Amino acid sequence: MRSFLPIEGMAIRWQSQLEILDQRELPLREDWIRIDSPADMVVAIKELAIRGAPLIGVGAALALAQEAQQNFDTLRLSSMAQDLRQARPTAVNLMNAMDRLLTTLASGADQQTFLNAAFSIYREDIELCEQIAAHGANLLAGKSRLLTHCNTGSLATAGVGTALGIIRAAHKKLPCHIYVDETRPLLQGARLTAYELHKDGIPATLICDNMAASLMRAGEIQAILVGADRIARNGDFANKTGTYSLAVLAQYHNIPFIVAAPRTTLDLACPDGAAIPIEERRAAEIHGVDSGSYRLRWSPAIPVYNPAFDVTPADLVSALVLDTGVYTREDLLSGRLSQIR
Amino acid sequence: MRSFLPIEGMAIRWQSQLEILDQRELPLREDWIRIDSPADMVVAIKELAIRGAPLIGVGAALALAQEAQQNFDTLRLSSMAQDLRQARPTAVNLMNAMDRLLTTLASGADQQTFLNAAFSIYREDIELCEQIAAHGANLLAGKSRLLTHCNTGSLATAGVGTALGIIRAAHKKLPCHIYVDETRPLLQGARLTAYELHKDGIPATLICDNMAASLMRAGEIQAILVGADRIARNGDFANKTGTYSLAVLAQYHNIPFIVAAPRTTLDLACPDGAAIPIEERRAAEIHGVDSGSYRLRWSPAIPVYNPAFDVTPADLVSALVLDTGVYTREDLLSGRLSQIR
Repeated sequence: MRSFLPIEGMAIRWQSQLEILDQRELPLREDWIRIDSPADMVVAIKELAIRGAPLIGVGAALALAQEAQQNFDTLRLSSMAQDLRQARPTAVNLMNAMDRLLTTLASGADQQTFLNAAFSIYREDIELCEQIAAHGANLLAGKSRLLTHCNTGSLATAGVGTALGIIRAAHKKLPCHIYVDETRPLLQGARLTAYELHKDGIPATLICDNMAASLMRAGEIQAILVGADRIARNGDFANKTGTYSLAVLAQYHNIPFIVAAPRTTLDLACPDGAAIPIEERRAAEIHGVDSGSYRLRWSPAIPVYNPAFDVTPADLVSALVLDTGVYTREDLLSGRLSQIR
Repeated sequence: MRSFLPIEGMAIRWQSQLEILDQRELPLREDWIRIDSPADMVVAIKELAIRGAPLIGVGAALALAQEAQQNFDTLRLSSMAQDLRQARPTAVNLMNAMDRLLTTLASGADQQTFLNAAFSIYREDIELCEQIAAHGANLLAGKSRLLTHCNTGSLATAGVGTALGIIRAAHKKLPCHIYVDETRPLLQGARLTAYELHKDGIPATLICDNMAASLMRAGEIQAILVGADRIARNGDFANKTGTYSLAVLAQYHNIPFIVAAPRTTLDLACPDGAAIPIEERRAAEIHGVDSGSYRLRWSPAIPVYNPAFDVTPADLVSALVLDTGVYTREDLLSGRLSQIR
């Protein structure tokens, strides 16, 4: 085991014990939660203590690795992998990671082979982020006033991030200014992206989601960068609620709309956006704020609509940046994604 | 005086004493604030205890009436009207109301004439709302799944409201379902519009601002209704931040985008949207929520952008409903507004 450890990410770490940073409490509290079992990780994923499509795949893999280290029982691990696989319905990285480890278990792998496979998911995610960041920074080609939505950084991946990884790489080439959508209802922009950019010293301005359009009209936004939770074969993709709105606004204002994800976000079995299941969440998140100890009610008890994600059609995507390269709208519409892997 | 009183609106009342409902505290608390002087009203307007472009014009007029009743000093009243006129920079109804009373004072009116003029502003606003509601409900012609932004009802006017007045009138003809944008940062949709619709028993669903686009794509929205804080001569208008975003999204999804206001919202001296001053507000409203006793901080101390309003160009307006009638986009673009009054 000494060859794999320690793991020291911004949001996940494993020295003697797997732990995750409780993202519901950021940025005002930095609480680390012990993960003692895959069942603990299922709860952490469901309650958004850990989040970000790539990171939950990594977290699930590491939770299984910790379990396998203590008790290498193939049947039990397979059952736990199935439970983890179902912890969130939209993000496909989790399913891809679990399917990979289930295949390893089914092939009769021994403990060391299984551990290698699980840790590979962690190490690969770091590498995939680096590749995405490099491709994306080249694509931006000097654009420096950027808008992003939700959180796609080191709190959403094992590495530098996807869309936020591109922003980090771009800022190294040319100083950038980042507009951060607060991302209601769970405020991943205001809480998490603002936290990461503040730590990195990258200039940023926090806005309400409904202000992005005016900034676009004013010429303040040169490109929009978002992540993805699942990308269908035809290039349609699901991402945090509010993404589709930005895509339409970007087209109207003639601003590049760039989606960034590792290839583990691809679901080539999914034909298009209409086939992506969308998780609906609790009314309390809309009646006020309800994340960790950030709780305040401000609305009367009327019905709400609370989809965690929305679907953006491929024809609104200017470019999709995967670790394997950059895919233009034309690439997506001509079916080039189905040739990956 | 007995002929004018009592005044019993949802958000303003005057039996023996002028009082306003503290809108910062709605919906979970219904606190009435005593207004003893025009200076009290200036503070209430600046701090948003009273809000809504038509209502602040009415509130300012009634504060001057109360003062004039106690002490009819023309110079003093003129000076107070000037102070009130400057309490908010964007909404023009306030300026129109104060200019009207300043003209009355300058003409050498006696106390009773001045009181008549001030109370007329209140009574007329009720009547203007009724006319807007009737025109707008006809225009909707059976459309029943409606989206609205901010608050434009009895908490924003002396009467049934502007956009929300239309919704009330439409719901009497045909049961409607209303999607309510929460309207960050001050949550006038989640707090105030939800409160009014809940009281009226009109079916409503509360959403985050960034979810409106997905509902439009899903065919859930048949028309969008918003108010206005100032309408320029060419039909461009300022309204609550987030309105411009809805206008672009409406055009993309081919959904009627309807603006409703009394003629007191017109500023024919203002040539276009670029000439409308936009008030910027405090960072605390973006770093968390900060309205009355709704206070919670959730972001790190990064810079924010917090314009209270945005400007929507006339070419995104499907129809403008004034008390004087319905003006199509073509009417606006051909300069028909400049013929009003």
